[in-house]
Amino acid sequence: MGPHPAVAAIRLAVRRVLHDILTEQTSAQHTGRIAQLSGRSAFHERPVEPLVLVACSGGADSMALASALAFEAPKLGFRAGGITIDHGLQAGSDLRADEVVLRLRELGLDPVDSVAVSVGRAGGPEAAARDARYAALDATAERHDACAVLLGHTRDDQAETVLLGLARGSGVRSLSGMAAVSGAGGRYRRPFLHLDRQTARKACMAQALPVWDDPHNTDPAFTRSRLRQEGLPALEKALGKGVVEALARTAQLSRDDADALDAWASQAETAVRDAAGLLECAKLYALPPAVRRRILRRVAIEAGAPAGSLFARHIEEVDRLITGWRGQGAINLPGKVVAQRQGGRLVIRHG
Amino acid sequence: MGPHPAVAAIRLAVRRVLHDILTEQTSAQHTGRIAQLSGRSAFHERPVEPLVLVACSGGADSMALASALAFEAPKLGFRAGGITIDHGLQAGSDLRADEVVLRLRELGLDPVDSVAVSVGRAGGPEAAARDARYAALDATAERHDACAVLLGHTRDDQAETVLLGLARGSGVRSLSGMAAVSGAGGRYRRPFLHLDRQTARKACMAQALPVWDDPHNTDPAFTRSRLRQEGLPALEKALGKGVVEALARTAQLSRDDADALDAWASQAETAVRDAAGLLECAKLYALPPAVRRRILRRVAIEAGAPAGSLFARHIEEVDRLITGWRGQGAINLPGKVVAQRQGGRLVIRHG
Repeated sequence: MGPHPAVAAIRLAVRRVLHDILTEQTSAQHTGRIAQLSGRSAFHERPVEPLVLVACSGGADSMALASALAFEAPKLGFRAGGITIDHGLQAGSDLRADEVVLRLRELGLDPVDSVAVSVGRAGGPEAAARDARYAALDATAERHDACAVLLGHTRDDQAETVLLGLARGSGVRSLSGMAAVSGAGGRYRRPFLHLDRQTARKACMAQALPVWDDPHNTDPAFTRSRLRQEGLPALEKALGKGVVEALARTAQLSRDDADALDAWASQAETAVRDAAGLLECAKLYALPPAVRRRILRRVAIEAGAPAGSLFARHIEEVDRLITGWRGQGAINLPGKVVAQRQGGRLVIRHG
Repeated sequence: MGPHPAVAAIRLAVRRVLHDILTEQTSAQHTGRIAQLSGRSAFHERPVEPLVLVACSGGADSMALASALAFEAPKLGFRAGGITIDHGLQAGSDLRADEVVLRLRELGLDPVDSVAVSVGRAGGPEAAARDARYAALDATAERHDACAVLLGHTRDDQAETVLLGLARGSGVRSLSGMAAVSGAGGRYRRPFLHLDRQTARKACMAQALPVWDDPHNTDPAFTRSRLRQEGLPALEKALGKGVVEALARTAQLSRDDADALDAWASQAETAVRDAAGLLECAKLYALPPAVRRRILRRVAIEAGAPAGSLFARHIEEVDRLITGWRGQGAINLPGKVVAQRQGGRLVIRHG
């Protein structure tokens, strides 16, 4: 008798990602060998199997991921390790972190680290926790020379991320959710991005793995938990059960679209500059609005405007120097960047 | 004392659209004169002022629109007329249509038509009603030789349309909502697309215009009314009050993105064909996925695949003939269209 279908599903998802990593490592084999000889692994007597870490909160998604990694890693020649982050935001979070470490060791993971971080306030509580978490994951991955860190985000998380992006109303890039592969050198992998949360939960039950339900996930103080508890269910009730899948598909399509348009804007930016490197208004005018506005945004950011403070309305105002020229004065952008039209050229520079 | 701010807002919105129409008419003046001499207006003694119609259900949005058109049209040299459609879907809908006609005449609109349509079943009740409505609007506009038909869709309607598109999960085109200008020759105009529903309602109250609340708008049998009554309010509760505006902005950005990518795909389609007009796999492979998949979709539709039955998963399967070639056989697409790889060429044709 094979494993429970949910267990089979989580293992397949992890196996695919490990295969991807293996393929990439093989194609980078030569470079890899040199790094191995010159790096810390040269101190070991035998060749060290590459390490894959799982980031685990103790919740169902990441416990399922840890169990699947423990099962699949040895079969493909990987070592499996784990990290849990103690955000220090809830009473007893240190004890819970210790418990997660124990559970990961019981699954056979080694090494297993618990890392305590201090969460700042920049960008709101959720963004600050995320920044602290990824900094700790990066540091731990580097300390252990891990080749990848697996994250337990599911299709449901992806749907929530797309809706959060939709609320920003800043276009396809904000609708593209989380990438299956991200971070420096593709360090972070999300094997469960096409799997639903329910499957992860079932896989834990089928394997009798105890899971921890983070009270933050249902705390209405957090935007994401409001979305999870009320927003998305109401949307499903209105639009039908396929909404989560549709949102996840939107993420993938939007990511591809955003990549293509960014590539176009990057190429076109060179083409619209004159010999002195100035932007020619006539050439900008001839471009599709979607491409022209991306160029204006790129140039404003290059000139020092902070990306996070540069909104669609700023870009639209600059765009009107091209499409609705009636002798407007200079336009002030965030970060003391100034945009103005000068004799058929658009000048965007730090004021 | 000027008008109520809501009344000022609806009038400004209509004035802008009438200005646009005027500008377009002036730039097409020469052609217009010839048409006037050869067309029905030649029978009149004096030059006929161009007619703008408003499509009016009697609800707050379209009653506000009718009142603003009645006020602004004469000032810019337009005649203002109205149409109301009796869908015959509710008891007494004919009497209500008569009442709307009376109200529009009271506003000074002339001509005012009531058109009874019979709603079929194709594509579901909402799509069938929409198809019947636009066919009747087209016919009425042509009968009166109207230069435009104004529609009362607000920013809230736009937000709902974006969410309906999101539920399809078919990418930026489905997120682009309703256009400010659409239909043959730009016949349909939506002056209120940036105005919220509340402003239209307030404008009716300020002008003591009686409005009719369509029970279909709150009937949970309709997807859009479920979205309006429950889905969108829940999303606003989770994400904040700016959601409607963010969705409307997403529509505009998505429309521009979709237009740019379609233009790229159209150009690239020519470039990837060999001398015999066949698609070269190597050249397709070199394109960004977002552009390549648009080309594959275009070609499949040209070969006879019905656009509405051609889903992302079909295109992905065809795409794997390019990106994941391992000797796959022919792929059957809707409408008896077959895609296969033959010696470095991709052949998509009606089987």
